[in-house]
Amino acid sequence: MGVVIPFEGNEDRSASLEPLIGLVEADMGKVNEAILARAHSHVELIPELAGHLINSGGKRIRPMLTVAAARLCGYRGELHVKLATSVEFMHTATLLHDDVVDESDLRRGKAAARKIWGNQASVLVGDYLLGQAFKMMVETGSLESLRILSNAAAVIAEGEVLQLAAAHDTKTTEDAYLQVIGAKTAALFAAASEVGAVIAGRPREEQAALESYGRNLGIAFQLVDDALDYSGKQALMGKSVGDDFREGKITLPVVLSYRRGAAEERNFWKRTLEDGDQTPDDLIYAQKLMDRHDAISDTVERARHYGDIARDALAIFPDGPYKHALLEAVDFCVARAY
Amino acid sequence: MGVVIPFEGNEDRSASLEPLIGLVEADMGKVNEAILARAHSHVELIPELAGHLINSGGKRIRPMLTVAAARLCGYRGELHVKLATSVEFMHTATLLHDDVVDESDLRRGKAAARKIWGNQASVLVGDYLLGQAFKMMVETGSLESLRILSNAAAVIAEGEVLQLAAAHDTKTTEDAYLQVIGAKTAALFAAASEVGAVIAGRPREEQAALESYGRNLGIAFQLVDDALDYSGKQALMGKSVGDDFREGKITLPVVLSYRRGAAEERNFWKRTLEDGDQTPDDLIYAQKLMDRHDAISDTVERARHYGDIARDALAIFPDGPYKHALLEAVDFCVARAY
Repeated sequence: MGVVIPFEGNEDRSASLEPLIGLVEADMGKVNEAILARAHSHVELIPELAGHLINSGGKRIRPMLTVAAARLCGYRGELHVKLATSVEFMHTATLLHDDVVDESDLRRGKAAARKIWGNQASVLVGDYLLGQAFKMMVETGSLESLRILSNAAAVIAEGEVLQLAAAHDTKTTEDAYLQVIGAKTAALFAAASEVGAVIAGRPREEQAALESYGRNLGIAFQLVDDALDYSGKQALMGKSVGDDFREGKITLPVVLSYRRGAAEERNFWKRTLEDGDQTPDDLIYAQKLMDRHDAISDTVERARHYGDIARDALAIFPDGPYKHALLEAVDFCVARAY
Repeated sequence: MGVVIPFEGNEDRSASLEPLIGLVEADMGKVNEAILARAHSHVELIPELAGHLINSGGKRIRPMLTVAAARLCGYRGELHVKLATSVEFMHTATLLHDDVVDESDLRRGKAAARKIWGNQASVLVGDYLLGQAFKMMVETGSLESLRILSNAAAVIAEGEVLQLAAAHDTKTTEDAYLQVIGAKTAALFAAASEVGAVIAGRPREEQAALESYGRNLGIAFQLVDDALDYSGKQALMGKSVGDDFREGKITLPVVLSYRRGAAEERNFWKRTLEDGDQTPDDLIYAQKLMDRHDAISDTVERARHYGDIARDALAIFPDGPYKHALLEAVDFCVARAY
């Protein structure tokens, strides 16, 4: 008979997204309807291209945050559906533009839209979705939500440019990397959560709490993604391993390995990621170096740290199903890595 | 001694933009300051790239429309400066994305930003400027202006996708072409003018009048641009002739020539514009065909028609320097073609 060994730390391997998904199910049904309705256009290429990405099975975590945050704040109206849809459109637009910027061939395991319809259409349909997102925000009449989400749009683009400038630079520091993902990923998680409190008309303290929850969850989420990209767990989930490596992306596991490594190891990282000169065995060796320097486990430790901050941010809210589900979502996010 | 020969029609060859430019000079000084301040970012590549385009001598007609429309409506505040700056940023973002979409090498006679900094940076800096534009709109607190401009953003992108789908199609009808420029060019002219009335708190009738003024001026402006691209007048102005032809763009002079031409002429347009198979003499021959079918002069006639509608739209406003300057701007726009 097996013995249950208590695992160090507070992660809960049985943590699940299911409670959150169950609570927001009805609202997300409306969000999905709005997504389809608002991606429509009499110019057929637009719903065709947008639908390709929208139907490719994204997890819709960001709009789920908006919906759940609004409900956590006791919101009983319907405007959160428009905000959540706006958030998903901002995210979709970013993905379309990212694929052009990264010259990606794949997105969510399917051919990237740009490979089917070309870079041009991807840029323009992204612009269209962004326009639709702002139109929906305006329909809510919430200037404060507009302020938060338009600011996020500028910050996200700024983060992408920053990453472009620092792309493939193995000398990137941990702080600089956190700045990039703070802008690229966490800014939209933060805004998506914060506008839930805004539309519910809650005081600034609760807005700030949800902003902090979203921001730190976003960082944890991205760091776990970074770790999974090099781990066998990812392979078990049917996802490909080493995408970041092949694309020469500098992520935290690389930053830690590079900084902790000897000169010859640094040369390896420079050759493979800066110069893009890779042989088939290089990924295995990269994983070996990461193992040697605890780069994956420490990346997950960092993620846990931000997850803890996200959890604490919700402390001011009274107990209830939404709070529990949002806390469990953090645990799930970190537990994915184990 | 020369004899002044009265020219048929109502165009005024001495019409000038100078009265308008003079009236808005102080306001446009503030707009220019705001443009520089808001294109700023701690990510250096952003102001560098944005500045390249912003300082390349665009005429800033669109923000001028916003400023002049607000003043025509008696506005005495400062928020029109933010709206005008937003309008110019929307335009700049569109240009950056357009260059990527069209794979252009030149913009306003200078190397296109994408040729210097790459497609990636052009896409992302465009996104950044769009985010900044929406932030500024939010700062005005005018939800109605946000509604109008976010709608324009979606319509512009939709028009670009439409054009992408119809690009190089010589069978494009005049109606279809007008639909494209109605979205690509006129939508922003219309929105830029309309928000001037909105920020001044004027009734719907004046908003609608300025919307109509801007829309029709935008169409006239684009049609005259189309005509000039094939005319010797353009060469006299130091601009290159035949850019649209070389890029295979379908513009109204082509639409008219194709529809009025014989079968062998249509084959010429198909070869040169649809198939992109051009010889050095083809531009001269294209101009000859346009001449044969009055395609340039009739394009200018069409422009005059829309210019007349723009003029009539302003009839409800009392006389005054702004009204006169805006009317003269229409005349100038059409007179450029002679």
